[in-house]
Amino acid sequence: MNILIKNIQTVLPNGVETCSVYISGGVIAAVSDEPVGFCADKTIDGAGKLLIPGLVNAHTHAPMTIFRNCADDLLFNDWLFGRIFPLEEKLASEDSYWGTMLAIMEMLSSGTTSFIDMYHPEEGSRAAEETGIRTVQTRGLLGGADDPEAGEWRLRTALEEIEKWKGRDNISFMLAPHAPYTCDEGYQREIAAEAKRLNLPINTHLSESLAENETIRERYGCTPTELFDRNGLLTDTTVAAHCVHLTDSDIEILTNRGVHVVTNPVSNLKLANGVAPVMKLLNAGVKVALGTDGAASNNSLNMFKDLSMLTLIHKGVNHNAQAVTAREGFDIATKYGAAAMGIDNLGEIKPGYLADLVILNLDCPNMQPVNDPIAAIAYSASGSEVETVIVGGKILMENRVFANIDSERVVYEVNKICERIGTR
Amino acid sequence: MNILIKNIQTVLPNGVETCSVYISGGVIAAVSDEPVGFCADKTIDGAGKLLIPGLVNAHTHAPMTIFRNCADDLLFNDWLFGRIFPLEEKLASEDSYWGTMLAIMEMLSSGTTSFIDMYHPEEGSRAAEETGIRTVQTRGLLGGADDPEAGEWRLRTALEEIEKWKGRDNISFMLAPHAPYTCDEGYQREIAAEAKRLNLPINTHLSESLAENETIRERYGCTPTELFDRNGLLTDTTVAAHCVHLTDSDIEILTNRGVHVVTNPVSNLKLANGVAPVMKLLNAGVKVALGTDGAASNNSLNMFKDLSMLTLIHKGVNHNAQAVTAREGFDIATKYGAAAMGIDNLGEIKPGYLADLVILNLDCPNMQPVNDPIAAIAYSASGSEVETVIVGGKILMENRVFANIDSERVVYEVNKICERIGTR
Repeated sequence: MNILIKNIQTVLPNGVETCSVYISGGVIAAVSDEPVGFCADKTIDGAGKLLIPGLVNAHTHAPMTIFRNCADDLLFNDWLFGRIFPLEEKLASEDSYWGTMLAIMEMLSSGTTSFIDMYHPEEGSRAAEETGIRTVQTRGLLGGADDPEAGEWRLRTALEEIEKWKGRDNISFMLAPHAPYTCDEGYQREIAAEAKRLNLPINTHLSESLAENETIRERYGCTPTELFDRNGLLTDTTVAAHCVHLTDSDIEILTNRGVHVVTNPVSNLKLANGVAPVMKLLNAGVKVALGTDGAASNNSLNMFKDLSMLTLIHKGVNHNAQAVTAREGFDIATKYGAAAMGIDNLGEIKPGYLADLVILNLDCPNMQPVNDPIAAIAYSASGSEVETVIVGGKILMENRVFANIDSERVVYEVNKICERIGTR
Repeated sequence: MNILIKNIQTVLPNGVETCSVYISGGVIAAVSDEPVGFCADKTIDGAGKLLIPGLVNAHTHAPMTIFRNCADDLLFNDWLFGRIFPLEEKLASEDSYWGTMLAIMEMLSSGTTSFIDMYHPEEGSRAAEETGIRTVQTRGLLGGADDPEAGEWRLRTALEEIEKWKGRDNISFMLAPHAPYTCDEGYQREIAAEAKRLNLPINTHLSESLAENETIRERYGCTPTELFDRNGLLTDTTVAAHCVHLTDSDIEILTNRGVHVVTNPVSNLKLANGVAPVMKLLNAGVKVALGTDGAASNNSLNMFKDLSMLTLIHKGVNHNAQAVTAREGFDIATKYGAAAMGIDNLGEIKPGYLADLVILNLDCPNMQPVNDPIAAIAYSASGSEVETVIVGGKILMENRVFANIDSERVVYEVNKICERIGTR
């Protein structure tokens, strides 16, 4: 389908301009100049609207929408071991499908067109295929000598899922050693070797909490970053979430290896883990992307909320009102997220780039007057301005109505799961 | 008009219950039990919705919506002296009316039913009277020996405005010495004396930045809190915004005087002023309320955003996941804001309380599943869930349509002002 979005204020790589955007074959065919012979199947009038590249949620656990607002204001261990793990025990695979569908509803309706997920790739892929959202699916791999069978089963399952679902335009995969403290060294090396053999990137959690750093120091006498580095897990396709507690030497390692760091500012505050050294990372040249983390620790998958937090908090804690500007934050939420996904032609509005686009309505009180559209996105938007969402040239939500999702059914099924497992 | 809101999940003082709420004569006539002889002129079905007391924005500068997103990512002095003050010079009084109307549109549509404003009470009162929102209006009083005429003019004008507009149900007044660094000691004492004479509360900015503290230390050899205290400005009806940089002794003074502190977490981060010691204040028993500050430093007047920030940031910076729980934050955004306004029967859903109520739609992806409605308000809501807003028993917005505001006209007029004064 050819789509023309006509005369719309557009966030381009180097500024904001009013232009027309031509979409064909799933990609942006042209910006401004009409391609020869272009015939639009659908034309969208851009008056009073803003066009942006779709936001990339570079770290989440989609099915955890089921646990939204069921474990709050708790100390980390009470949250994880007392509440989340026991609930996860009761979760069936099918439940993950419904939780992911709800997550996709929330993400699309708040302008996210791609997400890197760590949970259940079988159900995640099924949901992505049905809805059309773009995703990197990864299974969290926990394993070690104390229960080698479990680790082997997880890795085998992950590889089978990848084999089954590979080849889709909108779905790709990574291998995901869950965290330095949930994978022993042998397992870490095994995953690194498999990733190398299959040319798969790595997705992981790294230095999320001080407790993690202490555990790793006690077990191995080094930092989590040093540990992963010595086991071959840090390369320029590695996507490491959190990275809240890093030494300067860790930052040097991450820089040298070209690791993508995904910062999750809301989740890190909510679980009292602190504030990641994003300014230091950016100054060192580390590629930083943005994620919401799961709905059990955010408790929203609204990237506008995390973008706002990202562009506010580092100003406050660094006493520097120029820290992470609106434009820097916007790029982190879009093109650097796309880079973390490993997709070259994503995250900007340029000819040849994938047509993952979001149309925002500017005609709402919080967006008026539109003195600076990019500042408005970072500081004034709530996400509800998102009106229409296009992924790979297909309209997945138009005027806030989903194309491929029976949202009533999804909400019904998720609530049934909540009653069964006891989230209330 | 009698209104019945039927079978609605309701945030009551001690929890959430599904009940019916009866409104008559501008107040909540009853909760659950139908009053004898009650006859509803209007009935609202509460299925799938949540009823909360209206949010109280306890510190803002409403007309500054005109400057939204026109001065971002700037150092404080460049922001204030290079950008905001020169723009304010060009602002006519009538402009403040339109800016306030836009602010009221934004506040109502994100669930705020009351606000304490410091700007132009004449235009603010006019906008409040027309729209029906509840407000405390205050004129920022700057003055001192270097230009005594200006200070006297401001104080006289403030008193005239109060005289002109007093007696409205939804509008009240305070005297507002702008800040310790913009009022000299003589002016501070004069305002304190006038406030005492007329039984008016004080509204002010206090210890917003480190630079302010340094200035006051140099001029007077004490802290801003100590300075205001010795000039009689701190009482149990004083409302002091910001209070980011306080000594333990300042906190003791604020506690002993019974001052209401309004924290503005988003603005404080955005202008790089830091994080207020809210945990210390709460532990000391200081009455804390919540505000957005103006749209030039937030850049939104969405109290859900500030509530979310309030309940997140103190967890992160204090490394305590139980800091400012969802319920504590909710109370700060409602009943403690009402207390700061000096209104006894506001901010809770109880018989005899003013019927300032907000109905939220729970049927949106980010609010599902509703495992805990109060956590959902603090951590998951974006503000766009607000559907219907009632102030003093009158419906000011129903299904997101304003009762008394020509929103197209307001947006048109504000944009005309922006073009004239050059905000783009």
